[in-house]
Amino acid sequence: MYGWEKCMETLLQKLINECRPYTNEGKLASYIPELEHWDQNLLGVHVISCTGEEYGAGERDTWFTIQSVSKIMIFACCLMDSTTGEMEKKVSVEPTAEGFNSIVNLETKNANKPLNPFINSGAIACITLLKGESYEDKYIRVLDFIRKICGNDQISPNREVYLSEQATGSRNRALAYYMKSTGVIDGDVEEILDVYFKICSIQVTCQDLARIAVVFANHGKGLTGEEFFSSRIAKTVTATMTVCGMYDESGSFAIKVGLPSKSGVGGGIVSVVPGKMGIGVFGPALNAHGTSLAGMKLLERMSEELELSIF
Amino acid sequence: MYGWEKCMETLLQKLINECRPYTNEGKLASYIPELEHWDQNLLGVHVISCTGEEYGAGERDTWFTIQSVSKIMIFACCLMDSTTGEMEKKVSVEPTAEGFNSIVNLETKNANKPLNPFINSGAIACITLLKGESYEDKYIRVLDFIRKICGNDQISPNREVYLSEQATGSRNRALAYYMKSTGVIDGDVEEILDVYFKICSIQVTCQDLARIAVVFANHGKGLTGEEFFSSRIAKTVTATMTVCGMYDESGSFAIKVGLPSKSGVGGGIVSVVPGKMGIGVFGPALNAHGTSLAGMKLLERMSEELELSIF
Amino acid sequence: MYGWEKCMETLLQKLINECRPYTNEGKLASYIPELEHWDQNLLGVHVISCTGEEYGAGERDTWFTIQSVSKIMIFACCLMDSTTGEMEKKVSVEPTAEGFNSIVNLETKNANKPLNPFINSGAIACITLLKGESYEDKYIRVLDFIRKICGNDQISPNREVYLSEQATGSRNRALAYYMKSTGVIDGDVEEILDVYFKICSIQVTCQDLARIAVVFANHGKGLTGEEFFSSRIAKTVTATMTVCGMYDESGSFAIKVGLPSKSGVGGGIVSVVPGKMGIGVFGPALNAHGTSLAGMKLLERMSEELELSIF
Amino acid sequence: MYGWEKCMETLLQKLINECRPYTNEGKLASYIPELEHWDQNLLGVHVISCTGEEYGAGERDTWFTIQSVSKIMIFACCLMDSTTGEMEKKVSVEPTAEGFNSIVNLETKNANKPLNPFINSGAIACITLLKGESYEDKYIRVLDFIRKICGNDQISPNREVYLSEQATGSRNRALAYYMKSTGVIDGDVEEILDVYFKICSIQVTCQDLARIAVVFANHGKGLTGEEFFSSRIAKTVTATMTVCGMYDESGSFAIKVGLPSKSGVGGGIVSVVPGKMGIGVFGPALNAHGTSLAGMKLLERMSEELELSIF
Repeated sequence: MYGWEKCMETLLQKLINECRPYTNEGKLASYIPELEHWDQNLLGVHVISCTGEEYGAGERDTWFTIQSVSKIMIFACCLMDSTTGEMEKKVSVEPTAEGFNSIVNLETKNANKPLNPFINSGAIACITLLKGESYEDKYIRVLDFIRKICGNDQISPNREVYLSEQATGSRNRALAYYMKSTGVIDGDVEEILDVYFKICSIQVTCQDLARIAVVFANHGKGLTGEEFFSSRIAKTVTATMTVCGMYDESGSFAIKVGLPSKSGVGGGIVSVVPGKMGIGVFGPALNAHGTSLAGMKLLERMSEELELSIF
Repeated sequence: MYGWEKCMETLLQKLINECRPYTNEGKLASYIPELEHWDQNLLGVHVISCTGEEYGAGERDTWFTIQSVSKIMIFACCLMDSTTGEMEKKVSVEPTAEGFNSIVNLETKNANKPLNPFINSGAIACITLLKGESYEDKYIRVLDFIRKICGNDQISPNREVYLSEQATGSRNRALAYYMKSTGVIDGDVEEILDVYFKICSIQVTCQDLARIAVVFANHGKGLTGEEFFSSRIAKTVTATMTVCGMYDESGSFAIKVGLPSKSGVGGGIVSVVPGKMGIGVFGPALNAHGTSLAGMKLLERMSEELELSIF
Repeated sequence: MYGWEKCMETLLQKLINECRPYTNEGKLASYIPELEHWDQNLLGVHVISCTGEEYGAGERDTWFTIQSVSKIMIFACCLMDSTTGEMEKKVSVEPTAEGFNSIVNLETKNANKPLNPFINSGAIACITLLKGESYEDKYIRVLDFIRKICGNDQISPNREVYLSEQATGSRNRALAYYMKSTGVIDGDVEEILDVYFKICSIQVTCQDLARIAVVFANHGKGLTGEEFFSSRIAKTVTATMTVCGMYDESGSFAIKVGLPSKSGVGGGIVSVVPGKMGIGVFGPALNAHGTSLAGMKLLERMSEELELSIF
Repeated sequence: MYGWEKCMETLLQKLINECRPYTNEGKLASYIPELEHWDQNLLGVHVISCTGEEYGAGERDTWFTIQSVSKIMIFACCLMDSTTGEMEKKVSVEPTAEGFNSIVNLETKNANKPLNPFINSGAIACITLLKGESYEDKYIRVLDFIRKICGNDQISPNREVYLSEQATGSRNRALAYYMKSTGVIDGDVEEILDVYFKICSIQVTCQDLARIAVVFANHGKGLTGEEFFSSRIAKTVTATMTVCGMYDESGSFAIKVGLPSKSGVGGGIVSVVPGKMGIGVFGPALNAHGTSLAGMKLLERMSEELELSIF
């Protein structure tokens, strides 16, 4: 281990210690029953630089469900699998002041399109655009993509969480049926949502999230040089993460942290430092917006200490 | 002139030539009567690097009114003049899917605060937080700040535009009176709006906008090293520009251009390349969102050619 | 036939002749495929007085589906089967400026309750409050009530329309799943909607509608004196019809016609003249609000000629 | 005094006694400072039949400001002074689920017209349609009309209330400026609002309100047979009162009371029993919707006892 690396490990450990008390201020997600059983004091971070160095601290090996962090993978796959014209008919890329499961704008905005791919309605619409004969194919498309980028064939959904999302997904059904009624989506709503629920239930660790993040930081390329997707797609997803990734607190997050990021109610956050590194964070106690409270604090402190803000 | 500089001048001239045809697709602002008399084919750009080099092409010396670009100066002054606590009571920093003069969220969102400082309601609320005994003082506060950063004491409002904004500002009066009714602002609405109308009517050139932009790119410092404001404030404004600067097309702008920017219906756009350069653009023919159509195209092309995107 | 009766028949025939040309201005409902095959020039009216006289003209024997007119029967049954407290938790009785299938208010109004029992969400919520062990029982509850009041055991759903409502009911599914997500309704959404779709597909004639209307006009009693429901329930339903029965044109309808009424996209309208008579109208060509265009004109003219307005 | 009359006086006195305790559950209006000084236990009622009998009980001679009850007089004058076409451009006659001072629908509904003449925006729009060279003329138009119908030349605004409305009318200014920005109203907003504030400040008693009500009950005619306005106008106003008169509790009021009514935050309520009588009620302690709480209870009990509901 070199001096710089040692220094990073020490810093990350210091920040984990400093931020762990914030885990007490958050709440475990209640609307996905299986998530309630977590230890709310967990907190972990893993960093991978574009040159391949890795550092971490805290519970970086703990498995949790990817939840909405998967929306960046769905969006990326969608950009690979569809033409711009097809995308533009189904989903916009604009921010919204409404929450991640809001239905209002589907009725009040003229085109009835979801405002962006990172709210639930937008991710559901994106799923219909994925390559694949069947919905099972579309699910496999995203799962394989996550496995490939993470270099881990063992990545799979958590069956309990999946069943629980299935059982309690009324709001998502409302969003999907609304979009079906306005022609944004076609096909069998339960089949489409099944893909969505399965993808949300995929289990990952901080290390996996960091592996995802560093590909975006590296403009679509893996650490060994293979191109997972084009630089244009990397920038499209990263830009959208900046503007819409943290829902209705995207503005304050950009000010405090200054990194393109995407959170999930499983407690994970992916943060991209373009050209430099990818960060994966995990902490299951959430703030009122459904984002890891201590995880966000950790990113804020890291951004300050390492001057990572893109602004 | 060095080779690099010559090369930049040539590139900018090429892009002006390439983008000028787009000026025919836009429309001159109609709701500010004085703006209607512009030649709609005007297009100019000026660039200042953090190391002090300047380049430009097209109508970079033409005077136009700063309009909503001034909102970044009002916000910056506000951040200098108020505490975070005072700011948080008056204005949020979150994006919105509504337009720049929308009143809906003032009623439907719980706190009744404007969603961000770059929509009209937010800028009006910010004005009340500026340092100054009187509203005249608050106006002078911003005017002097613009003059100082631009290094140009001649910068002044256009009286005709100011009178026309005064005469046609009913929507802004509605926003201000609504905020007065909910306690977001105090004081005399006409006096507050008078400051707003005067600031919007300040005349600048592309060169002035580039001078403003480069200070944000340089994290608050001028080219000769003087600190106009703190790095923290620079990053706060720049981050907010990225998320909210282009109103309800902030997302697609971030994807296409990838630079923190703020537009005005006068035809100006300020773009910041953090750590590298400031850009001022002018083109009075606007798109449906009130942003210079050809100016935006020019920024998109510049960003591609020079790989300026922050993502 | 007495002179008065003959005079009424003549008047109704005259009004049918006068109003039939308006059938060309309306449109057959397109979102329920089976309805598209109607002859759009049909127009019929049937009147039953509280003293038992009956008059009619036009296509008063034509079968059509009851659609939203059934909402007054669902509401009436609900008022009989539930306590006021149970009702108040599930549905409000206030008008709305939004359309009959709007979802916005379920999210934006605090309680998430449907605003009234005559918009789709409200009728669906009412179904869950009906007496009955199973959903089949709840359906039979309403069907039997309609049969009993109309004195016609042959009244049944139209299977084609029912299947078509099932197949195209995405908006109603969105409403139901949204209410399930906020706890307004429990149980299996498809089962609940199946009751709704079956009830909407029940076939009636103008004569049946007039029989329903006269019971409300007679404050809950049938022509032979039997009490179908209390006077309080009759007044509750009739008052709600006046304020909310014609959706977002309830105001202009009250001005022009002045009678508590409820329309359906099947082309039927029920109108109540309290203490005097019940009116059933049918004309399948609809206006932009989903109400029989010529049918409404007919009611307006009848109200003028017979001075029926309750105001 | 005949037996019937004595019986009515006795009944009204009994109801006043029964309902006065409810005055403790309401709150005096706080947003009009002058109203705060009232004794909150006041309660009065006055009834005038279409045949000229008068009965009353409680504080029926106490002066209070007419406030929103004046909207029925503004609307009636407007219907006399303008063509239907002019009216339709400025104001709709549909109910809304939003409150009386809501601004949302002015932005979200396509035509930008106020939804009805009984919310603040609608009454302000109506004022611009009144006959009169100057705004002073328009004010005198309404004042004289009220004086004429009440047969009382002493009726005048309360200067303190007027000044206080002027001083605190920010929300109304927001509504008016919004409508000016969309072209619904022209002219000087302060002048228009001055008329509105003056009219709202006019002082009346329960007896005056009953005199107004009985003219509507009598289809536009006074007790001595003079026609104040046409039967068509009487029905238009009465129908609109039923559907929109109690704002977002118009539905439950129609169910409980069943009479076309209009309330004001001054504590007055006008209720019309078409063809039978006019009722004026006063009780300054308001419910959450800005309506006299005990006054509403009194009307509910009267309607029950005398079977007044129009349904």
